[in-house]
Amino acid sequence: MDAIDLRAAGTALRDSAPLVHCLTNTVVQTITANALLAIGAAPAMVDDPAEAGEFAAVASAVLVNVGTVQQRTAEAMRLAARTASEVGTPWVLDPVAVGGLTFRTELAADLVELRPAVVRGNASEVLALAGAGKGGRGVESTDTPEAALEAAGELARRTGGIVAVSGPVDVVTDGDRVVRVGGGSPLLTRTTGAGCALGGVVAAYVATTGDRLTAVVAAHAHVALAAEAAAGLAAGPGTFAALWLDALDAVDGDALACADVRSA
Amino acid sequence: MDAIDLRAAGTALRDSAPLVHCLTNTVVQTITANALLAIGAAPAMVDDPAEAGEFAAVASAVLVNVGTVQQRTAEAMRLAARTASEVGTPWVLDPVAVGGLTFRTELAADLVELRPAVVRGNASEVLALAGAGKGGRGVESTDTPEAALEAAGELARRTGGIVAVSGPVDVVTDGDRVVRVGGGSPLLTRTTGAGCALGGVVAAYVATTGDRLTAVVAAHAHVALAAEAAAGLAAGPGTFAALWLDALDAVDGDALACADVRSA
Amino acid sequence: MDAIDLRAAGTALRDSAPLVHCLTNTVVQTITANALLAIGAAPAMVDDPAEAGEFAAVASAVLVNVGTVQQRTAEAMRLAARTASEVGTPWVLDPVAVGGLTFRTELAADLVELRPAVVRGNASEVLALAGAGKGGRGVESTDTPEAALEAAGELARRTGGIVAVSGPVDVVTDGDRVVRVGGGSPLLTRTTGAGCALGGVVAAYVATTGDRLTAVVAAHAHVALAAEAAAGLAAGPGTFAALWLDALDAVDGDALACADVRSA
Repeated sequence: MDAIDLRAAGTALRDSAPLVHCLTNTVVQTITANALLAIGAAPAMVDDPAEAGEFAAVASAVLVNVGTVQQRTAEAMRLAARTASEVGTPWVLDPVAVGGLTFRTELAADLVELRPAVVRGNASEVLALAGAGKGGRGVESTDTPEAALEAAGELARRTGGIVAVSGPVDVVTDGDRVVRVGGGSPLLTRTTGAGCALGGVVAAYVATTGDRLTAVVAAHAHVALAAEAAAGLAAGPGTFAALWLDALDAVDGDALACADVRSA
Repeated sequence: MDAIDLRAAGTALRDSAPLVHCLTNTVVQTITANALLAIGAAPAMVDDPAEAGEFAAVASAVLVNVGTVQQRTAEAMRLAARTASEVGTPWVLDPVAVGGLTFRTELAADLVELRPAVVRGNASEVLALAGAGKGGRGVESTDTPEAALEAAGELARRTGGIVAVSGPVDVVTDGDRVVRVGGGSPLLTRTTGAGCALGGVVAAYVATTGDRLTAVVAAHAHVALAAEAAAGLAAGPGTFAALWLDALDAVDGDALACADVRSA
Repeated sequence: MDAIDLRAAGTALRDSAPLVHCLTNTVVQTITANALLAIGAAPAMVDDPAEAGEFAAVASAVLVNVGTVQQRTAEAMRLAARTASEVGTPWVLDPVAVGGLTFRTELAADLVELRPAVVRGNASEVLALAGAGKGGRGVESTDTPEAALEAAGELARRTGGIVAVSGPVDVVTDGDRVVRVGGGSPLLTRTTGAGCALGGVVAAYVATTGDRLTAVVAAHAHVALAAEAAAGLAAGPGTFAALWLDALDAVDGDALACADVRSA
């Protein structure tokens, strides 16, 4: 098994400032863009069929998040994912609330066939996407990451990519190896879009680090470290959000090397 | 007249973590979600006809805010409000800028026939919705809550629900009783979406407190108390927004019991 | 050449609280609205064809920003710009990412024929809109304002309006006079929507100051001064955003009179 070199991943991200094409939900576009700017990436939110394919062809990575999807943006997501697949650009699928709602569940099932480099979601979403669950409560998970581990591994083997399940301890797998990322803060779940922004951070790392398991683990560690730092300064969920962005900016390769990461 | 037990309302909210389905405008989705998370509710923003009816059927309450409405989301709002009506889920109508713009004024007139549990708006909006005014200046009110009191009462008797008029002193009525909520801060009107987020807070309270007048008063008191606390710490409207979210998290039943609430 | 009286421009803005109709991208609606509220203007985001013409007719100024444009909002932009032109209301065009994407580039070319009072963009966008460049990297500029000066001047003479090119030193021209605005902070480029919000601030100033070159310079100076003040207090890009809004509120005519503004 390759060593997980988080320091190198952090340095590679800062050195290359990847252009991350985001097709994401309207609730979280702002915090996703700000999180990407904070880690040194360049976000661009282009989510219409008239432009999505054209832009995916020049981006460093693509994020597809189905949070507030509709017919128009679903079509843009299909175009962007297909283009990314064809030109070999890594793309990330965030199956928000999949399982509980029919339209997006069918869309996500189609998208998964386009082989996302990474699927990132909560346990209920990953279980539903893998065909092993019925989704959570709205955007909340009603399952634990460990309960989704087997389904995550199967999904990873099916896509040939990485599957990451967010929770108090995140679980990241390529279907063979499993890495757990601890730390973080419960305040992340009190900040709308923090998980969705993590999807953007994952896209930025997979654009800049060749080993995808390492890239996804680095992204989760980056977000968790920043959350811990912010939680120590915040007076509540409102101030936390701003301090978390500050901390995303401050985390570097040296900090990543000290993250709570456990390979199994 | 039943006593207004705000302490119990605050406790009921925290104990039940209601799932609030929001169909709201794109300017305020983020602050609405964050305000709901801060008070302990679970927000979900599902605003497309493909999913809105399906989701309204499982939500604890529904918020319909016409702030940036268009054909597509108008259809979703009709579906969600109709479903909520049919299954007996309380829903809240926020008639943003109704009166001044034809399309949304006609939509709001239709929606009001589906008997919202609560209408919450500024005075110009409530006057226009009640058929007694022509709306304000964009999203701003050009009338006072007291000037809208009679129209609010008539509207409440027509819907069989509660009508709340926001202003320096909020007026809440069921068409019979009138309750006024003071406190708050002018900085609320300098923060985009604070009033719209209040609509979400109202939905969370009506989902968890049986007496609807009490629920709506508790929501207004919660927001006003948090605004006062935040205004005491803020250096301006930008820091206020984050501190207000912190304070929404901190307000509990004990604090609510001390709010500036006057029954008439 | 008329003197550039920034003090008077700042006072005029505060005294008139202009109603700014924004058709802007969904990533930046919130910060644009908050920036406008902070400077004392009244924002309203109405971006559907069903309402955009009706609202443009009553607004003090109109902002058209093509950041996340689609067929529906493109049609609303055409209606709003046409109405503004016909009734003599000043309107501002922000050609986000024009040059790099076909759909919005064609739209912006059409809109420019409706003679915007101001075009505000980064250097790559202005070069592309003037027909002298191919756009930047997503929403980022790959050119400097000085490199776009000639194209900006030609564009200004073509529209009969002002063209402003944002950068470390902003360049503002009416095709004859050139004014440079310094100051600001690199943190502005780390905050999503700061440049787009500047477009809204420009619209507010052109609604309230008769000399349009002065109005546009005042808007840039206002934003730059606020950024400098916020940068001195911020711990990173997250806290910067909130402090910048605080500082936008604090800048007045006296402060503007001390801005780093150089006429050539």
